[in-house]
Amino acid sequence: MVWFVNACGRGRPGVDGMRIVTSRIIRRTKGFSDIHDLTAEARLCVEKSGISNGQALFFVVGSTAGMTTVEFEPGLVKDLKELFERIAPRAAAYHHEEAWHDGNGFSHVRASLLKPSLIVPIVDGSMTLGTWQQVVLVDFDNTPREREVVLQITGEAT
Amino acid sequence: MVWFVNACGRGRPGVDGMRIVTSRIIRRTKGFSDIHDLTAEARLCVEKSGISNGQALFFVVGSTAGMTTVEFEPGLVKDLKELFERIAPRAAAYHHEEAWHDGNGFSHVRASLLKPSLIVPIVDGSMTLGTWQQVVLVDFDNTPREREVVLQITGEAT
Amino acid sequence: MVWFVNACGRGRPGVDGMRIVTSRIIRRTKGFSDIHDLTAEARLCVEKSGISNGQALFFVVGSTAGMTTVEFEPGLVKDLKELFERIAPRAAAYHHEEAWHDGNGFSHVRASLLKPSLIVPIVDGSMTLGTWQQVVLVDFDNTPREREVVLQITGEAT
Repeated sequence: MVWFVNACGRGRPGVDGMRIVTSRIIRRTKGFSDIHDLTAEARLCVEKSGISNGQALFFVVGSTAGMTTVEFEPGLVKDLKELFERIAPRAAAYHHEEAWHDGNGFSHVRASLLKPSLIVPIVDGSMTLGTWQQVVLVDFDNTPREREVVLQITGEAT
Repeated sequence: MVWFVNACGRGRPGVDGMRIVTSRIIRRTKGFSDIHDLTAEARLCVEKSGISNGQALFFVVGSTAGMTTVEFEPGLVKDLKELFERIAPRAAAYHHEEAWHDGNGFSHVRASLLKPSLIVPIVDGSMTLGTWQQVVLVDFDNTPREREVVLQITGEAT
Repeated sequence: MVWFVNACGRGRPGVDGMRIVTSRIIRRTKGFSDIHDLTAEARLCVEKSGISNGQALFFVVGSTAGMTTVEFEPGLVKDLKELFERIAPRAAAYHHEEAWHDGNGFSHVRASLLKPSLIVPIVDGSMTLGTWQQVVLVDFDNTPREREVVLQITGEAT
């Protein structure tokens, strides 16, 4: 296992055909449901991993962001932001504020609801995403951040 | 790895005991939060895979459907539909409509919230589901579809 | 694979370096969005597994509880409870009640939305959680329960 910043990892060439390749995807985010399409980096890492059948696991580090899929077009990006604003309004009262005063209670509960991980099967060398289905990071925090997504690819290298 | 339409895949009999078996479950859906119980097909595929310990990964292809578990009884099926109608009403205004005019903005945001994948451990040859816990596909689209769920079973074959 | 009640499992020392270690975490819960931090048990099991790179899969058995991550502090614990009360109010009408009369329709739909599984990468012997990101079980039921979370650790033992 090798870590790369903004580069794809390469696994050990296991004699048994099973391997684990871990990469890091780093993104500068603006917060407030900032949505980033990570599909291109992920495709590259899957290809470079040499893994033909298995899984791509995405995990965003931290408690104010989440991972999901969406048809990545400007309208839906806005719709998804509005969905989270409806579910957990920024202006509502949050108990997190009482102790921490950092104004991001809404960010935390949105992130806990969406959850930090996403897992996509790899079949015949490609993720089984639909044509209009992209892998996205959603940053709910209330400040710009440098976000780290761990991309762990596990499976058979043939 | 072998693909079957509406049949269970069979993995290669790996010498090391670890294998990956990928199947496809195809369902005709009606949309509008149409909920389908896939537990029986999944149990059959787990049994046929020969995998005794590992994971069953479900992934629905496309950006207007999701996977979860529920006690599959008519009352809760209705309750789950109503939950999503409350969270993301069909009649609300969606920016997706501005460019695409296909009237399924609500389908997309519901699907992004529920997410396309579900993973269930396999222990001693069975998924660790509760007695009243079924694996379900929820199709949020606004039109009938033929849906594909990738079921990837990974683990030790003993 | 070995099952332990409230103890960490130990995998077979596979010759190939890949192994699966399954444990059970048991918690007495009070219901009504009772939130339990399972990070310490999980860390112990990851360490004892001898797995340095791979995944920790958490799965809560049953259809009225879910798994996620949160910054585990008293304010956010309250905020998360209030989020689910807003999304699926306890006092709303649920069709589940018509057949079952057990008063936990709200518990079921909340659990289906949050989902029962969570998966966290393991890199260099540790889960890739953020400093303020804990693994939590959320019990949505309306009665005290003894909850079982299956923790399955898969990966390379080096």
